[in-house]
Amino acid sequence: MREIGVRCKPDEVLITTGAQEALDLIAKTFINPGDIILTEGPTYLGALQAFSAYEPDVHPIPFDDKGMRMDLLEEELKRIGKGGAKFLYTIPNFQNPGGVTMVLERRKRLIELSHEYDFMIVEDDPYGRLRYDGGHVIPIKALSDDVLYLGTISKIFAPGLRTGWIAAPKSVLSKINLVKQGTDLCGSSFDQVVVEHYFTDTPWEKTLQTFVKTYHSRRDAMLAALDEFFPKEASWTHPEGGFFVWATLPDYVDTSSMLPVALEAGVTYTPGDGFFPDGVSGKNSMRLAFCYESPEHIREAIRRLALVIEDRLELYRAFLEAGAL
Amino acid sequence: MREIGVRCKPDEVLITTGAQEALDLIAKTFINPGDIILTEGPTYLGALQAFSAYEPDVHPIPFDDKGMRMDLLEEELKRIGKGGAKFLYTIPNFQNPGGVTMVLERRKRLIELSHEYDFMIVEDDPYGRLRYDGGHVIPIKALSDDVLYLGTISKIFAPGLRTGWIAAPKSVLSKINLVKQGTDLCGSSFDQVVVEHYFTDTPWEKTLQTFVKTYHSRRDAMLAALDEFFPKEASWTHPEGGFFVWATLPDYVDTSSMLPVALEAGVTYTPGDGFFPDGVSGKNSMRLAFCYESPEHIREAIRRLALVIEDRLELYRAFLEAGAL
Repeated sequence: MREIGVRCKPDEVLITTGAQEALDLIAKTFINPGDIILTEGPTYLGALQAFSAYEPDVHPIPFDDKGMRMDLLEEELKRIGKGGAKFLYTIPNFQNPGGVTMVLERRKRLIELSHEYDFMIVEDDPYGRLRYDGGHVIPIKALSDDVLYLGTISKIFAPGLRTGWIAAPKSVLSKINLVKQGTDLCGSSFDQVVVEHYFTDTPWEKTLQTFVKTYHSRRDAMLAALDEFFPKEASWTHPEGGFFVWATLPDYVDTSSMLPVALEAGVTYTPGDGFFPDGVSGKNSMRLAFCYESPEHIREAIRRLALVIEDRLELYRAFLEAGAL
Repeated sequence: MREIGVRCKPDEVLITTGAQEALDLIAKTFINPGDIILTEGPTYLGALQAFSAYEPDVHPIPFDDKGMRMDLLEEELKRIGKGGAKFLYTIPNFQNPGGVTMVLERRKRLIELSHEYDFMIVEDDPYGRLRYDGGHVIPIKALSDDVLYLGTISKIFAPGLRTGWIAAPKSVLSKINLVKQGTDLCGSSFDQVVVEHYFTDTPWEKTLQTFVKTYHSRRDAMLAALDEFFPKEASWTHPEGGFFVWATLPDYVDTSSMLPVALEAGVTYTPGDGFFPDGVSGKNSMRLAFCYESPEHIREAIRRLALVIEDRLELYRAFLEAGAL
């Protein structure tokens, strides 16, 4: 926490069974049915899943290439009023699925708005240390002690160890801790010993640099392939880190119904509608992950996917000419 | 599972982050606010905690030295009617906190009642392999495939690995599995590798026998000390295994308010009211754990605790003589 610019004491940190459990515990502790939760739209589908068990009313706020749009957030806050939202959930760095990063100016504005309209900020930061370009933007938590910050070792060491944490004010953590007892008693002490050993006794920062180098070249391969192959009707984000590019196609393309065709061609992606609480918005969008495959495979995958999309566009043009739309 | 008499296939087992998570997931999947849940009374307080987050109406059923009383359960079922209870939660072996074991005849009767009155059975069996006297009683799950059986390695290997499981029909597990994804994505694969290694490549049954031998002598020490020191007004259970004895004092003794006095004397126990959903019943009872201390310490602890209790009884007698009660 100190390395990324946040000061907190040991009793302001609670270890969780991965950051996913942190999302569940925060939702379980704070959400009553009908409570308004603000998120980026699109947002992490695991967060939507975690929240949905407690039946909130999730309001997604669009982002642009500078992160969540504070003007649209403010409009929404004016509509729902002071105290009307329970918390705002954001992934400010290399957002999942958007790939965008919230600029410092907006982070500051977000804190002002949280005070003005009285809601908590939940800052989820799984990808913060996987930056390939640009400079580190300090966490929202570093700007305001009240923030609930979620960390994880999944992307900088190993996901299978299920070790994450919540850094939050003591008064908030004591509530969450009680809820955790009823949920799984405690995390795996064995995994925690392994994690401690890794971050104490191994050259983990060097290892992390090899991860960063690997992902960097994959990100570059994907952006280059998108430029080379994707149709001019498509647009996409240009992430400075993380795992994901968010691509948007013309609104008559349904990426869910296109998926089987892509699979047929040997490519997969995540259809955009899963990242919205209504399951309808974003249906012409897709999340493209560049973390797993080699640059060569990524280029070939984007080439094939572009052909699948081009087919759809052709079909649409044919319908249009036939006057069928 | 096969060793304890249950046949189930791999896809009828879901690994959980300890059996505590299993309790949370079952509650999260099945309980709607106001649903009636049946339990032994007293029952495991971690189960009450896990359930309470989903706001059920918990009805505790008393036990005697043969386990949950089926006559009282049937009376309760008649009151609430067919389909009126969502599930019944039981710890049939060496119950926590009761120490009692449900006899085979009652296990069979319980299954009949579950069919007649249409409720699920959740069988929690953390202590089943820690038997010091008497013969193995086959699990309820072995008598009926519909049962949700909860296992854990916490008491036969190590609690810190947070590895438990639910054995249940596939149709039930697929619902719980979906809920688990939103709760913590998955368990620690690292811990699971360690657990697999332990049960495949080490003489774990021999190690278990040393656990059993150790706990056996501690159980014996506690029962002997209770016989030797506890006042004749007290009664207690005689567990054939597990970790706990449940002691009941005259109903004018409040074990919660007595606890600070016992702590002063260097002894601790768990007051009985925590094991009831109303937090009031069982206030003259206490859970005594014999799993942790040496036989010598157990004897001395029971001796001191008996003195604390005797003081309370004296006080009562004095009040009574003074006509103040």
